[in-house]
Amino acid sequence: MAAPGPLSLNTVTVKEKWGLRECIEGCARHGIPAISPWRDVLQAMGVAEAVRAIRDAGLAVSGLCRGGMFPAMDAAGRAAAIEDNRRAIEEAHAIGAACLVMVCGGLPPGSKDLDGARGMVRDGLHAIMGDARAAGMTIALEPLHPMTCADRSVLSTLGQALDLCDELGEGSGVAVDVYHVWWDPALRSQMARAGRRIAAFHACDWKVPTVDTVFDRGLPGEGCIDIPGIRAMAEEAGYRGHVEVEILSRRWWAEDPDRVLEEIVRRHAASC
Amino acid sequence: MAAPGPLSLNTVTVKEKWGLRECIEGCARHGIPAISPWRDVLQAMGVAEAVRAIRDAGLAVSGLCRGGMFPAMDAAGRAAAIEDNRRAIEEAHAIGAACLVMVCGGLPPGSKDLDGARGMVRDGLHAIMGDARAAGMTIALEPLHPMTCADRSVLSTLGQALDLCDELGEGSGVAVDVYHVWWDPALRSQMARAGRRIAAFHACDWKVPTVDTVFDRGLPGEGCIDIPGIRAMAEEAGYRGHVEVEILSRRWWAEDPDRVLEEIVRRHAASC
Repeated sequence: MAAPGPLSLNTVTVKEKWGLRECIEGCARHGIPAISPWRDVLQAMGVAEAVRAIRDAGLAVSGLCRGGMFPAMDAAGRAAAIEDNRRAIEEAHAIGAACLVMVCGGLPPGSKDLDGARGMVRDGLHAIMGDARAAGMTIALEPLHPMTCADRSVLSTLGQALDLCDELGEGSGVAVDVYHVWWDPALRSQMARAGRRIAAFHACDWKVPTVDTVFDRGLPGEGCIDIPGIRAMAEEAGYRGHVEVEILSRRWWAEDPDRVLEEIVRRHAASC
Repeated sequence: MAAPGPLSLNTVTVKEKWGLRECIEGCARHGIPAISPWRDVLQAMGVAEAVRAIRDAGLAVSGLCRGGMFPAMDAAGRAAAIEDNRRAIEEAHAIGAACLVMVCGGLPPGSKDLDGARGMVRDGLHAIMGDARAAGMTIALEPLHPMTCADRSVLSTLGQALDLCDELGEGSGVAVDVYHVWWDPALRSQMARAGRRIAAFHACDWKVPTVDTVFDRGLPGEGCIDIPGIRAMAEEAGYRGHVEVEILSRRWWAEDPDRVLEEIVRRHAASC
């Protein structure tokens, strides 16, 4: 099997101890050639300053996390979400991100109307695609694990994401995070269907047992996901981009970030 | 909307405080017309004694939980699982269960071979279908939520279960638990596809947030699942059986079981 594509660090992986400047310096120090910031650390540093620092460090930007979160109880909330996504597109463009990753949003608080929430996601995406195309920014729909359906993403499967891409057309794609899709019986066929629309590939692992539905991800190799197998599907589909390591984990957040980056570099070579 | 089908109590709902005899007496006391035992409490009471008590209380048996758990590291483990499923079919037949519910099993310990585990499930099911048909016992494949894929069920979606039913033929069906399937974008179409193969309907709820991947289910109405909406899909498909309430919850296990049964009776009428 071919070596994995170049590594990228998603900043959430060390979010408890490092801001964006420390992440950029850490990538340079550990030989990690790319980064994927979350918007909170990007805004805290300032976009212009971040652009300079990322350029000075010679880093690629595999994505910006995250747009989305379209469903809301009322029209004002939904309009605010769309406006916020327009700002996210501008930020992603400014830092030269390969894509804007979309976590589409869950049910509005108290709602049981799943079809309604899916409609709000669809409407929100349609509303921003013109801006995205104008900025040359790929909108990467990230299907999230079904256990996040209520509160984070009513977009649950790769097939569902690709159905939306079919509708949205040029400028749309998918972000494949192995953590969210590894269980899917349709994974192989949907990866082939995705083809060149795979805009990002995220690696982490499913620990057995998993004790938290959000903050207990493993580093590659700590769990049961056949990451190289899913990476091979992405490559067969034509993906040639970064392998972005994104870990939401109370256990790893408590560690020295330099140690976490060492582990990631080692595991990228061994387990991705 | 029509009233929900008759209520059934799954014994796991009060497993910390009641054995099968107490569950049978509790159903009679609370006017619950059916029961669905787990095998551990059935065996603890003794099958013959349970048959008498269930008959004397005039209860229907909406299912026996559970067969399955086919994947194992070695051939001896897989053969033992098949033998155990044959005993489960006998027990289900003895108590007059409407079906034997199958929780098919996850990855063998340490394995990352999801296709392999799925093959073990398929092989195991093929091995027992002759026994099931001879006993007139419906094998009800229960797709489990994808968050259980590693350690409980590599069978994750209703579509995947129905693909297996297509292959297994007569005597196979599905157990639809709203907790496991509510998030599925293909739910409506797969429920229609299931038709008369829906052998059981389980109700509980998805709490927001959910703090444990196994033991934090809500009673109907405590969460975000549109249970009447999914029940209507089952009825449109032809289902006329029980609404079985199955709650795995540390919070409800700590309560007085009589209070839990009162809540279930009330919520069956109000939220199912």
